[in-house]
Amino acid sequence: MSWRADVITLFPELFPGPLGASVIGRGMAEGAWSLQTTQLREFATDKHRTVDDTPSGGGAGMVLKPDILAKAIDAVADERPRILMSPRGKPLTQQRVRELAAGPGAIIVCGRFEGVDQRVIEARALEEISIGDYVLAGGEVAAMVLIEAVVRLLPGVLGAAASHADESFEDGLLEYPQYTRPQVFEDREIPAVLTSGDHGKIEKWRRAESLALTKARRPDLIE
Amino acid sequence: MSWRADVITLFPELFPGPLGASVIGRGMAEGAWSLQTTQLREFATDKHRTVDDTPSGGGAGMVLKPDILAKAIDAVADERPRILMSPRGKPLTQQRVRELAAGPGAIIVCGRFEGVDQRVIEARALEEISIGDYVLAGGEVAAMVLIEAVVRLLPGVLGAAASHADESFEDGLLEYPQYTRPQVFEDREIPAVLTSGDHGKIEKWRRAESLALTKARRPDLIE
Repeated sequence: MSWRADVITLFPELFPGPLGASVIGRGMAEGAWSLQTTQLREFATDKHRTVDDTPSGGGAGMVLKPDILAKAIDAVADERPRILMSPRGKPLTQQRVRELAAGPGAIIVCGRFEGVDQRVIEARALEEISIGDYVLAGGEVAAMVLIEAVVRLLPGVLGAAASHADESFEDGLLEYPQYTRPQVFEDREIPAVLTSGDHGKIEKWRRAESLALTKARRPDLIE
Repeated sequence: MSWRADVITLFPELFPGPLGASVIGRGMAEGAWSLQTTQLREFATDKHRTVDDTPSGGGAGMVLKPDILAKAIDAVADERPRILMSPRGKPLTQQRVRELAAGPGAIIVCGRFEGVDQRVIEARALEEISIGDYVLAGGEVAAMVLIEAVVRLLPGVLGAAASHADESFEDGLLEYPQYTRPQVFEDREIPAVLTSGDHGKIEKWRRAESLALTKARRPDLIE
């Protein structure tokens, strides 16, 4: 059974969108993963197909109703983790991405409006995940981020398994700088060590560059 | 002049994609912002339209060539910030989003493959921005995240300006829990304070909830 994503959203037409392109889309075409969307509005019970209502206690925006969302979740729920994309969530890390890639898939709820009723988050044990410390208009692009990060780790999606090992975060450091031809670009040369053919020296230089960059930009990653 | 995004990518067909939907798409239709894409491959000089080459010093993947990318950037460059979406970058914050929203727009380069030649990053003073501590297959969805976060702050895109004030990160805290009708959902009631009509008490409760949630989930946000 390949990795399965279910996305619950008011905008199913946005999927697969960018997830249909490049290596991620090829992986889907080749069966390494699959994607199904649920239109939340189909679970509304009134003739206006209402999915949201005003916040209790006042305030701007609209809140997704717990009863409607619970029904949409229950329609696809199985053993997969149930995730709500939300700026209130735990920040997504490459570690969590790896865990999700090792599992059967994910059920992903995309928030909109001011938020989601807290009771359905609790009653359905939704894991709130944030992709970063900024606010989006909805959870759809965030869901795409999560799915793309996971799918590229699935067997057969990227060509060589080796291309994961040197990446940012895989060893807790930012990746070293990369260079390619031409040898001289606007009077800037490729660092001599990289064309020396001495693999030990290259390895050492890259490690030092990774460490220096991480110290300068992301001291929080070095504990 | 409205906010202008230029995206340099190997997959221009992915845009606007999700950025064409909902309030973000409406903002574009109404002229609050505009989007232009550049196909990087059009700046290649050989008959195979090559944009990448193997990494100097060896390793997996391919690196975007500095000369080709520099020409693509130069074709659109003006006073706007030049951004490279990259896991090696500075993490995107709501503060940086606000700064970008206050400016004329952005030129956004989407990386692919193993990375981008370091010399063009330096020679064109690209600001490397990361949307989070995980790795994507390319910069396209990351560019969508950046643009969506910025565009929703532009005047006229979201309805009420008030709906920004209470959000996660806008005051340095995660947002308080939200509730809406029905009053009882699966034996769970809306907290009584929210239906009390006492706005002072509601305000105090929400502030306390925000603080408690932030302490529990994101102690790093509280300094």
